[in-house]
Amino acid sequence: MAHLSYVQEAKMDVLILTTGGTIDKVHDVRTETLVFDGSTAVSDILKYGRIEFPRVESLMSIDSLDMTADHRDAILRAVIDAPEKNIVITHGTGTMEQTAQHLLGHVRGKTVVLTGAMRPQSLWRSDAEFNLGGALIAAQTLPHGIYAVMNGCVIPARDVRKNLQTGRFI
Amino acid sequence: MAHLSYVQEAKMDVLILTTGGTIDKVHDVRTETLVFDGSTAVSDILKYGRIEFPRVESLMSIDSLDMTADHRDAILRAVIDAPEKNIVITHGTGTMEQTAQHLLGHVRGKTVVLTGAMRPQSLWRSDAEFNLGGALIAAQTLPHGIYAVMNGCVIPARDVRKNLQTGRFI
Amino acid sequence: MAHLSYVQEAKMDVLILTTGGTIDKVHDVRTETLVFDGSTAVSDILKYGRIEFPRVESLMSIDSLDMTADHRDAILRAVIDAPEKNIVITHGTGTMEQTAQHLLGHVRGKTVVLTGAMRPQSLWRSDAEFNLGGALIAAQTLPHGIYAVMNGCVIPARDVRKNLQTGRFI
Amino acid sequence: MAHLSYVQEAKMDVLILTTGGTIDKVHDVRTETLVFDGSTAVSDILKYGRIEFPRVESLMSIDSLDMTADHRDAILRAVIDAPEKNIVITHGTGTMEQTAQHLLGHVRGKTVVLTGAMRPQSLWRSDAEFNLGGALIAAQTLPHGIYAVMNGCVIPARDVRKNLQTGRFI
Repeated sequence: MAHLSYVQEAKMDVLILTTGGTIDKVHDVRTETLVFDGSTAVSDILKYGRIEFPRVESLMSIDSLDMTADHRDAILRAVIDAPEKNIVITHGTGTMEQTAQHLLGHVRGKTVVLTGAMRPQSLWRSDAEFNLGGALIAAQTLPHGIYAVMNGCVIPARDVRKNLQTGRFI
Repeated sequence: MAHLSYVQEAKMDVLILTTGGTIDKVHDVRTETLVFDGSTAVSDILKYGRIEFPRVESLMSIDSLDMTADHRDAILRAVIDAPEKNIVITHGTGTMEQTAQHLLGHVRGKTVVLTGAMRPQSLWRSDAEFNLGGALIAAQTLPHGIYAVMNGCVIPARDVRKNLQTGRFI
Repeated sequence: MAHLSYVQEAKMDVLILTTGGTIDKVHDVRTETLVFDGSTAVSDILKYGRIEFPRVESLMSIDSLDMTADHRDAILRAVIDAPEKNIVITHGTGTMEQTAQHLLGHVRGKTVVLTGAMRPQSLWRSDAEFNLGGALIAAQTLPHGIYAVMNGCVIPARDVRKNLQTGRFI
Repeated sequence: MAHLSYVQEAKMDVLILTTGGTIDKVHDVRTETLVFDGSTAVSDILKYGRIEFPRVESLMSIDSLDMTADHRDAILRAVIDAPEKNIVITHGTGTMEQTAQHLLGHVRGKTVVLTGAMRPQSLWRSDAEFNLGGALIAAQTLPHGIYAVMNGCVIPARDVRKNLQTGRFI
């Protein structure tokens, strides 16, 4: 029954680390800006996606433009310390490139996929659900390594580059 | 620059075949039921996902419970005739299993991923974006074969089974 | 300070009676139909509208095509027994006309406004928020009598007529 | 047929003047802020509300905190010059009070209702639909004068006051 093991394994071993980023921003009525309220959109997305198997761990809730070397070390440690080998990191798009580079060379024997959104999930018509859906599959199907999944594409860590003009990674 | 070729290839060669299914249903105000109006939710999902590279071809717009052997042959022909080797099929969940089996054994040298939704995309809070995002990545990362992507999991064709009680495939 | 009393009075004395109807329907994943789950969309609409002052009382949760004389008597009793003089009734559009007629002639000294939706609130892009917002204002501004508020118009009870072709009341 | 004239008159004579404000803001992917793109949410709201009879005229598309005396004069002129006697003005909440005061004493023989939203309509779960639905009914049912409709209440011009702590007008 070798064909069954693939599915069962896929369900068992996925960790989603959340760090904030646009995907998690919400509208604040008083300041009329987009802010973090400490919650993560990942919970809603998994609910809509009708799945429960990934373990979700919230590391921080910040704009990736505010990320320091310490923050990136914390992410790296969480990746290394996790019992799971298949890991998705939700992350701001602004410095996804830097975090991908930071992980590269320090993580062994794991498949790590960074993703995020250009429009907060809480605003609807967002790319959040689409991107997280893709990242989760990538984390289960790609060989060990560091990748981003954005705009429906798998992007190896060294090629992660946000185009500020188009708001796209490809 | 071998590392670039991966991304570029991923962008080039994906076909999305739409066949209807719950993912494409819309609310009809007069009959107060969910119906097909000939359009496909895939267009909106790709727009929200901020991508344009997949080619989208609408084969039919029907409930998968109404699918006949002829419909499945039409899907099979479209898969075989397509120049693309990476193919996503949006499909009703009710008989996704049968179509997956039908393709199995007749398709060579292609990665075919069936997906769909339990809640129409037009109703929001749907699993459509999440599932299509996953299917698109699966079509670009899995070895040749027939699969379904539902509930955040890759399911090989022979294991595709909808649980009518839970409304899930895993 | 006569000008203040108007606002304060408006906030005090509004009852929303819910009876079901399309406005309250939700998508059922298993049967792929629109059903009642016992909840009412009115709670969400008031939350989005950022108000708390109306009292909400759920009388029943049914399709208005299934309403019997007994159901209409229950609505009439609730209207008469309510301490509030400004009453909104959320109701299916199919027989809103009959319930309006039923109340007419039996209710004295109250402003009663029926409203509903052609598309369930839970499906988004619904007319539910727009209609309830209008009905609430109508209940506070119209002279005593029985009315419907649909499609942005106030319709006196005797003129309430759903056009089955257009799905509109005007 | 005196009872019909009420409905028909209500449908004929409503103008919606749009001036911008939070109700019309949209998310900008590049700057990750809420901006104006020149469009107005009023069109979508009327479509969801299933009505076409109001005439919509866009005067400006600005944050009400940026409104000058000139802007308010332009609004006043548009109100006075309009052939319609029932007028809704969509407006930022920040200085709705000042514009209401500005109109007060200069407009005769018309019912003018200001409204807006605390959360942009384009972000969903907004108060925009609810508020505009109420304002449209108020414009058709209130005696001549200047009012705001926010939070499900009719507020006479001289009492319009935004509570910055609660984000409410009542």
